[in-house]
This record gives sequence, structure tokens and C-alpha cells, in this order.
Amino acid sequence: MNYSMIRYILFRLFRIMGGLLMLPFFVAVIYKEYDSAESFFLLIVIMLVVGIVGSHKKPKSTVIYAKEGFAITALAWIFMSLLGAIPFVMTGTIPNYIDALFETISGFTTTGGSILTSVDGMEYSVQFWRTFTHWIGGMGVLVFLIAVMPMVDGYSMHLMRAESPGPVVGKIVPKVKDTAKILYQIYIAITILEIICLIITGLPIYDAVTISFSTVGTGGFSIHDAGIGGYSIASQVVIIVFMALCGVNFTVYYFLINRKPKEAFAIDEVKYYFGTMFVSAALIAINIYRAGILTDGVLSFHHSLFAVVSVMTTTGFGTLDFDKWPMFSKMMLCILSLIGACAGSTGGGFKFSRAIIVIRNARNELNYLVHPKAVKRVYMDGHAVEGTTVKSVSAYLVLYVATFILSCIIVALDNFDFQTTVTSVAATINNIGPGLGMVGPMGNYSEFSNLSKLVLMFDMLAGRLELLPILIFIKPKTWKK
Amino acid sequence: MNYSMIRYILFRLFRIMGGLLMLPFFVAVIYKEYDSAESFFLLIVIMLVVGIVGSHKKPKSTVIYAKEGFAITALAWIFMSLLGAIPFVMTGTIPNYIDALFETISGFTTTGGSILTSVDGMEYSVQFWRTFTHWIGGMGVLVFLIAVMPMVDGYSMHLMRAESPGPVVGKIVPKVKDTAKILYQIYIAITILEIICLIITGLPIYDAVTISFSTVGTGGFSIHDAGIGGYSIASQVVIIVFMALCGVNFTVYYFLINRKPKEAFAIDEVKYYFGTMFVSAALIAINIYRAGILTDGVLSFHHSLFAVVSVMTTTGFGTLDFDKWPMFSKMMLCILSLIGACAGSTGGGFKFSRAIIVIRNARNELNYLVHPKAVKRVYMDGHAVEGTTVKSVSAYLVLYVATFILSCIIVALDNFDFQTTVTSVAATINNIGPGLGMVGPMGNYSEFSNLSKLVLMFDMLAGRLELLPILIFIKPKTWKK
Repeated sequence: MNYSMIRYILFRLFRIMGGLLMLPFFVAVIYKEYDSAESFFLLIVIMLVVGIVGSHKKPKSTVIYAKEGFAITALAWIFMSLLGAIPFVMTGTIPNYIDALFETISGFTTTGGSILTSVDGMEYSVQFWRTFTHWIGGMGVLVFLIAVMPMVDGYSMHLMRAESPGPVVGKIVPKVKDTAKILYQIYIAITILEIICLIITGLPIYDAVTISFSTVGTGGFSIHDAGIGGYSIASQVVIIVFMALCGVNFTVYYFLINRKPKEAFAIDEVKYYFGTMFVSAALIAINIYRAGILTDGVLSFHHSLFAVVSVMTTTGFGTLDFDKWPMFSKMMLCILSLIGACAGSTGGGFKFSRAIIVIRNARNELNYLVHPKAVKRVYMDGHAVEGTTVKSVSAYLVLYVATFILSCIIVALDNFDFQTTVTSVAATINNIGPGLGMVGPMGNYSEFSNLSKLVLMFDMLAGRLELLPILIFIKPKTWKK
Repeated sequence: MNYSMIRYILFRLFRIMGGLLMLPFFVAVIYKEYDSAESFFLLIVIMLVVGIVGSHKKPKSTVIYAKEGFAITALAWIFMSLLGAIPFVMTGTIPNYIDALFETISGFTTTGGSILTSVDGMEYSVQFWRTFTHWIGGMGVLVFLIAVMPMVDGYSMHLMRAESPGPVVGKIVPKVKDTAKILYQIYIAITILEIICLIITGLPIYDAVTISFSTVGTGGFSIHDAGIGGYSIASQVVIIVFMALCGVNFTVYYFLINRKPKEAFAIDEVKYYFGTMFVSAALIAINIYRAGILTDGVLSFHHSLFAVVSVMTTTGFGTLDFDKWPMFSKMMLCILSLIGACAGSTGGGFKFSRAIIVIRNARNELNYLVHPKAVKRVYMDGHAVEGTTVKSVSAYLVLYVATFILSCIIVALDNFDFQTTVTSVAATINNIGPGLGMVGPMGNYSEFSNLSKLVLMFDMLAGRLELLPILIFIKPKTWKK
């Protein structure tokens, strides 16, 4: 273990946090929330001082291996969350630190599940920070660090791999640093584009900015109790489009920008992603229309598509309370949320690429039983998937199911109903936010015990970091010499 | 495809069915249920005549390969069920054929979920046939066929493999025919032993025989509406012991009979099976005791152990209505039922051996990420598991999850609550019988639509035959030349 490198990166995080908190500070000043401005200012000073002093001395060696990559990533996220929760407590918005931590982890992991029973009337600066955590967590803070920190390229890949979602994390361009920069440039461009679109459809600037943070990070914190339901249909359509776009593998955008449409459209998971999206939306639209939830066919499709895109991208925004929809629609949404979005996007879940790999592999195994001479290689995007990838994806499914099951058992101790218990775990481990029952679109996580909250926080982090960093982090063997 | 062999085996099944129906016929005569006796007699004559005429001509070649093995197994089970349902309709017990088929499939697959709202007052002979289907399905009708039918040993293995549960189906002795005989001998011995024990604890002979059929087949049909709750604690203990014994890999008994205790106790899954059983029973006992369900500690443990053994072995007997227990207990039971029993037993579920393989493989993958030189082989029972087995078990998990998910979506169309929808699928695909909510220990499957009933019948068959035969059977490719 390269402890001095771990220390160095954690102190760099203090500096980054100091920098990031400047935005809500300015918002506080603009909206004349002077008490909160003071709190933010104090925090900025402390973080910058600690960060600059602590990371003054560079480590002798910036060499890190896979093990350090995973451990640093897990530590960094826990650390960021512990720091990020302080503003909520200091401003008095969430006086209980455990609750504040839940809200912050929910923010950074882009889950969007809240312990707050109401968000109307929250201070502008705090609300800003709350949605900004989604934006920071969406692309990942270590990816940002890689883009700005001097580090040997080969080793920073270990951080990139540990933080970025998907079964195979590739570099878009040969250098990891440049890949990180490109990813952030695309990310910022999409954010600005959404802000502009939302302003055009009539949203106030403040709403446009915060909702865009929640959308592109596929987070789901909304700034009104009515969720997205209070906005115009035009604004809702903009949000649907940007949610859907942010659930796509970002490599697609790089290919498109560089005029390589052939490569962009050769990605299998993107096709399945959009195909599943429209078929599911149509089925649910028919289901809610026939159940009399909405009497207008077009509106049924609109709200159905919104819900489908919202859960598939694991954003978790709501226009209508889908907890009141028929069981078929709820079950569809629940299952779509398990699959999630594409690898290399800001969305969570098991990911389409993994689903494709394990299903194609299972199909091959089935063929193999019948035709022992059948080819057993799994193909994706026109290429054969490496055997080690297939194996590690299969193992990932097992870890995912095991984490899910163990979490359900502990959360069941709170003695809530079956639906609430299962979907609260599903909604956190997949970073969606809302589940069904008590944690439905109009519900929240305030009633859970501290033990359950801790388990759900663990699940949110495990889900965002795709299990491995967190599981490796808690393995005692990792820390043995 | 060796169609003449398929035809031959199906006609042999007519003969077997004719023979099996003689038992309920005698029961009908003994209890003077003459109308039913007539029905059974008529059926016996028809089945024997059709069977003997149809299987008179032996096929030129008894050579079958894996593909035929799977297809014959699936066909045979569907066929048996179609025939086995007739007595229920003819005797007027279940006038609707779809319902009768559900009950029969539930019987043969040892699921034990019923569409009947009450079983008290059913005719003795029909009740006998109902529980006898569990006994027939427990060890498997093709295993029986192998034991009695002249067939080249190497090829009958394909049938054995397709029908017997577990990731690796081994021969206990070099010859498949002898293996089948030994398995049935052990099976009959256990059944007789349980009948004797139950009679000693005070059960009437009729109850002892039928309940033993349900127990050793790990089925779960009970002959009274009160389930097993109406019997004495001593009888309940006997049932616990025999349920637990029938969830164990039968190879263990072969080793014990042949005085090879070392081999018997070297089987990993048996240790985990009993370990999980007692730890879970203790946790649930504490949970229900503290929740005030029972005020006696010993009784809490008794009923907790009964429920745990009942769901782990996927029998599904009930003493108390565990649907009224706290969510922690219900969740534990639900999850235990997913894992199920041991491979090579009469129990269903995912099986402990598969769980051990996938978990150890996942642990290896995790270690591999941290230590790229770590050993990646999976060990079980002291031996390395073959790579192809690990791959096929991983694929099995995927097929299992996929079947589960698709079934939930279709059953959700009935618009029952989340708990009922999910656990009805879990209870059928794992061949347990009772789930939670509407399909809880005191509930039944009568309210489901025909579409859902068909899906759940499919799940019962898929679960009992461990997916592959049924999935290969419904693949159009299997039937192409």
C-alpha cells in the first residue's frame, strides 16, 4: 500500500471541496442568505488551508496498483461524503449528522433518495449545494482529479477504472489524463445545453441550473415537493431528452464529435437501451391508459416515457406518483431500474452491457448443451468479448445479488412491508432514489432506523462505485501487509 | 432427433401411469369410494392398453444424445402432468382442467401450491393420488424408467442428467441403471421409515402414508386445512427430521450405507446446508419470540425450525401462518427458499452447491483484482471444480434470474400486490408452494388468471427440471433438422 499517495490524494480532495463550495457560497451571497454564506465561507477557508498544507509535500512515488486504486476510490468517496454533509448541518437544514450524511451520499452517488419530508422553502444556497452534489458525483471526482493532477498516466488508469461504471473501462484517447479532460468537457457541454433549453421552455434560471445538475448527473433531487410535475410539458420533454442522453455511454458523443458516426452506432448496448426504453414506455402507456390513470393517450405515453427514462437512467425524477399505477407498470419500472443505463454513462444499475454479456453467454451455454461443437465466444459491438471479462461480469452479478440479499435482511429488521423493504434496497443499490410503497416517488427515507440508513448508504456507495472498490475496501485482507 | 425413441418413451409412460394409478384405485376400494374407483379403473385400463400397444415395437436405435435427453425429459414431464390431471377432473374434485393441471404439476414438481381453497373432506383416494404425485415427482419418473427399462447405459445418462437436480450429476456406481436403482431403494427406505415413525407418534396410517409422500418428495401438499399444525409436536419433529434428510444429497446416504463416513462428511454443501438451517432457525426464533408471536422460547425455536426446514427443503408445509410473522422472519424465509436444498436431493431452489460455486468464484475474482497472481480455481469438497462447471453454473444463475423477472412481469398483469406477485413466482420456480400475502401458508393460487396459472405452471416445471430441459424444449432451434 502506497500510504503517502493515499494521504496525498485525500488532502487534494480537501482543496477540491474548498473550491466546489465556492459556488453555493456565491449563490448564498446573491440570494442574501448571509448566515449560510458565513457557514460556506468558513468551510471554504478550513478546507483550503487543510488541503494546501496537507498536500504541500508530494509523495515520493505516485505509483499505485489496482489495490490502491480501489482503496483510494472507496476512501475518497466516503471522505467526500463526510465533508459534504457538513454544510447541511451547519446551515441547520438537516441538524442530524447521520441524516445529512445520508442526503450527501444520496447526492454524490446520484441516487436522489431523500430523508427530507419537504424541500420547498429550503435556502437557495443549500438547495444549490444539494443538487450540485449530483453533478459532482455524476462524472466522478477522481476523474476530475486525474484531469488536473500531475500523475504518471499508467497508474492513474487504476483510479479511472475503479471509479468509472461498466464492465470494461476503456480510454477514449491514448492518455488517461486526456480521456478524463474530454469526458468532463462533454459533461459540461451537455449541462450548459440543458440549462439553455430549460430556460427557453420557461424555467427560471435558478431552477434551470439546479434541475440540470440533477438531470445530467442522473441524480433525481428535485427542488420542489411536486417534483418535476409542476413544470410545463415542454420542460418535461427537455428533461426526458437529457436524462436519456446522460444514460448513454459517453464514448458515443466522443465518436460523434469526431465525426465517426459508424463507430458510434456500432455500440450494441445503446441500441438495446433505446429499444427497451420505447417498448417499455409503450407497454406502460397502454397499461395506465387502460387502467384509467390518464384519459389521454398522448399524455399517457408522455408520463410513461418520463417514468421509464427516469428509472432506466436511475435518475428518479417523478411527474406522477407511479406508486399508484397498476402492478404491471410498477413491476416493469422496478425491473428496468435493476438493469439501469449504459456503461460509461452517469447512470447506475447493473448496466445494459453487463446484461448483454451475461445473457449472450447464457445463450451460448444453452446452445453448447445441445450442440457440443457450438462456438462459445460472446460477441459485443462486433468483437469477441474476452473470457476474463465474461467471468468477471458473471462474478459481478453474484456480488450484486449477494449484496442485495444481505441488505434486504438487515433492512427487514425495521419491519416495514415487503414492497418497501425490497424496493428501498433496489432504489439505493441502483442509485435510483424512489422505490415503491413508503419510498415511492412521493415518499422518502426519513422513517428508517439508523442501522437501515447505514446499510442503504453502503448500498448507494457500493452501487455508484459498482461494488468492487467498496467490497475490496472492507476486506481486511486488503489492509494486511 | 431420434423421434422413434421419444415416441417409445412416451408410450412407456402410459404404462407407468397405468401402474401408478393402481394405488389410488385400491385406496378407493378400501374406503368404498366406488364412483372414484370406477374412474381410476377406467383410466388404468386405457393407459395400460395404449401404453402396451404403443410401446410394443421397440425403436431400432436407443441411441440418444444430450439434445434428446433434454427434450424427452421436458416432454415426459408435460405429458405425465397432462395425464395425471385427468383423475382430478373425472372424480369431480377439480372440474376445471386448467386448475387440475395446475394441481398436478404442483404435485409432480413437488411444489405443493394448491388452487384448492379447502382440502378437508376430499375423497381418500383422490387425496392419496394428490400426495402420491409428490412422491413420484420427488425422485423423478425417468430415473424410475432408467431403473426398469432396457437401454444402453451410456445414453440413459443423458436422461438422468436432464432430470436430476444439481450442477454436476454424477453416477454413484459405474452403471447408470444401478445408480437409478440404488437411488430408488434409498428413497423407498426413507419413505417407509417415516411412515413407521409417524405411526409411532400417533398418526393414523392413512395420514402417515400421505404425509410421508409429501415429506420425502419435499412436496408440501397437506391433507387437512390446518396443514401440519393439527398434529402433535412429536409428529411435527418427525416431519422436520425427514424433511431435512430429504434435502440432503442422496449420495451421502449411499456413502453411509457403504460405511464410507469420511466421504459422506467431506461434502461441503451438506455442512453449509445444516449450518444455515440452525443459524437461520435461531435468528427467526429470537425474532418471533421478541415480537410476541409465541411466548415460549422452545416452541418459538420449534416452529421457527419447522418453517426454516420447510422452505429450505422447498417442501412448504406449515404449522403456523408465517405470513403474520415480522418482516425480518419473512425475508429470511423468502431468501432461504431461493437457495433451496442440496443438489441430488428431492428439494428445489438454486441449490447450495451452486451457491457455493458462484460465491467462491466471485471471491476468487475479487482476490484476483487485488492480487493478479492469486489462484483462480474454485474448490469444492476438497477438489477443484472444472472451469466448464463454473461457467455453466454462472449461466444457470442468469437464466434463473431472467425466468424469474419475465414471470413477475406477466403475473403482475393480474394486479395483485407486490409481495404476492414476487413470492408467487419465487414459490413456484423454487417448488416451495406457499409464498407470502395471498399465496401465504394459509392462502392458495385459486385467484390467479389462467395466463398467470400457465406462467406459474411453466415456472414449476422449469424449477423442478432446473430450467435447461424446459428452455431447450421451447427453443425452436432444438426442433430444426
